Amino acid sequence: MCQLLALNSNVPTSATFSFTGLSARGGDTDHHVDGWGMAFHDGEAARVFLDAGRACDAPLAAFLRQHPVRARTVLAHVRKATQGAVALANCHPFQREWAGRTWLFCHNGDLKGFRPALDGSHLPLGQTDSEHAFCWLLQQLRRHFGSGPAPHWRQLAPALAALLPQIAAHGPFNMLLSDGHALYAHASTKLAWLLREHPFPRARLIDCDLEVDLASANAPGDRTVVVATQPLTRGEPWSSFEAGELRVFADGRSVWQQATVPLEAVAAA
Amino acid sequence: MCQLLALNSNVPTSATFSFTGLSARGGDTDHHVDGWGMAFHDGEAARVFLDAGRACDAPLAAFLRQHPVRARTVLAHVRKATQGAVALANCHPFQREWAGRTWLFCHNGDLKGFRPALDGSHLPLGQTDSEHAFCWLLQQLRRHFGSGPAPHWRQLAPALAALLPQIAAHGPFNMLLSDGHALYAHASTKLAWLLREHPFPRARLIDCDLEVDLASANAPGDRTVVVATQPLTRGEPWSSFEAGELRVFADGRSVWQQATVPLEAVAAA
Repeated sequence: MCQLLALNSNVPTSATFSFTGLSARGGDTDHHVDGWGMAFHDGEAARVFLDAGRACDAPLAAFLRQHPVRARTVLAHVRKATQGAVALANCHPFQREWAGRTWLFCHNGDLKGFRPALDGSHLPLGQTDSEHAFCWLLQQLRRHFGSGPAPHWRQLAPALAALLPQIAAHGPFNMLLSDGHALYAHASTKLAWLLREHPFPRARLIDCDLEVDLASANAPGDRTVVVATQPLTRGEPWSSFEAGELRVFADGRSVWQQATVPLEAVAAA
Repeated sequence: MCQLLALNSNVPTSATFSFTGLSARGGDTDHHVDGWGMAFHDGEAARVFLDAGRACDAPLAAFLRQHPVRARTVLAHVRKATQGAVALANCHPFQREWAGRTWLFCHNGDLKGFRPALDGSHLPLGQTDSEHAFCWLLQQLRRHFGSGPAPHWRQLAPALAALLPQIAAHGPFNMLLSDGHALYAHASTKLAWLLREHPFPRARLIDCDLEVDLASANAPGDRTVVVATQPLTRGEPWSSFEAGELRVFADGRSVWQQATVPLEAVAAA
């Protein structure tokens, strides 16, 4: 399994504080040592940093903790391999272009035997269940919406709500998806989120001896949503996702929410 | 216009020495200040570092000069904007997935009015002539070869030799293309290359006060091809590409070469 992190803000924001907590879980406070990745997404393009080593002591991860890269959406992932070798091709976030936008995807979970047919519009580079699911998801969205222009989140959210249970039926499927305009987060077993806004509290990382006064790091009008597999801080009001919940975040707000229904629940009803 | 750099080796090799020379041209010894990128390519996946600032003093470029990332193919680019704003979406190398491989592309030149129809299989994120040409090239290769498995360079090289003159008819088109297995380099106006192999000389950067003994940085069996817009070193046997020349490099050797014929030459004949 793995651990996920995402931030979505109304202004370009640094994720160094949160990434410091997450990357400690990449070999120091937890055992996610099989690669890591971090992506900064604003509009159509993204900067994606990948490494097949340990996030807790990789020089590139130290660089990213020390040099704030600001973006309105940030994704990060530390990997504990379940399917696929320890290799660059198997590190999240995965990225593809569809409809003139970069799409980024991270997954925590284990999809048993989920290898649906792919038509070649998007194919995996590596061997993970996660990347196969991402390629299938983009393929289905491409069939539904065509090749452009990219749909608004108001169109995309209900389409995802119909598609994600087909993946989640095969095993734990906690995922983050970004197109640089909105952040889509789905939980089947474990995901938490919080809204950071004025008045900002002091927050203390759970995984490191580090506390910051968020009021000094933010202007009064700044808003940031933080999503993580497990809460990263003490002193902030984290909420857990329900099983099957899909949320859309845009401009640092939760703008859409729906309980998707796992296929097995439909079958059992 | 821009400047290009590529290395192709038979063993994973660091490009810190060559990148030190190239990145000086990103604002110090030359005026290519509108963004830069560097990519490390081994097999299907790649690590791509992009920045919309100046390579000569960007902290990330300093990190890459100081921390060798080893790969069998390395691409780098410093940009002087001709078409498209100074923005991350317009920085080279561009990347796309086709046939289960990452494809990377850098361009030096200026294609006037080259905006062929795109079918949506690959669309630009930004506004450059370069990215439009890359998307068109992948679209035409996809039509010819299908969506997988990826063709060997023996199949791909003649297909490129037929396609590239259609782009080069619109203006200077010096380009680098990599699929992580071979490096394709085409010159229409300016590109140079050299083979580094045993016995290794001492080499001195033209743009910086830096000299290295390449024998101490390489084992006797190592071979590296270096390709650059202009020679980066003194003391090494650089060769210029002919106008219209396409070369394929694999495992640190020049393995295929052909003079492609610009369409205007055909028309004038």
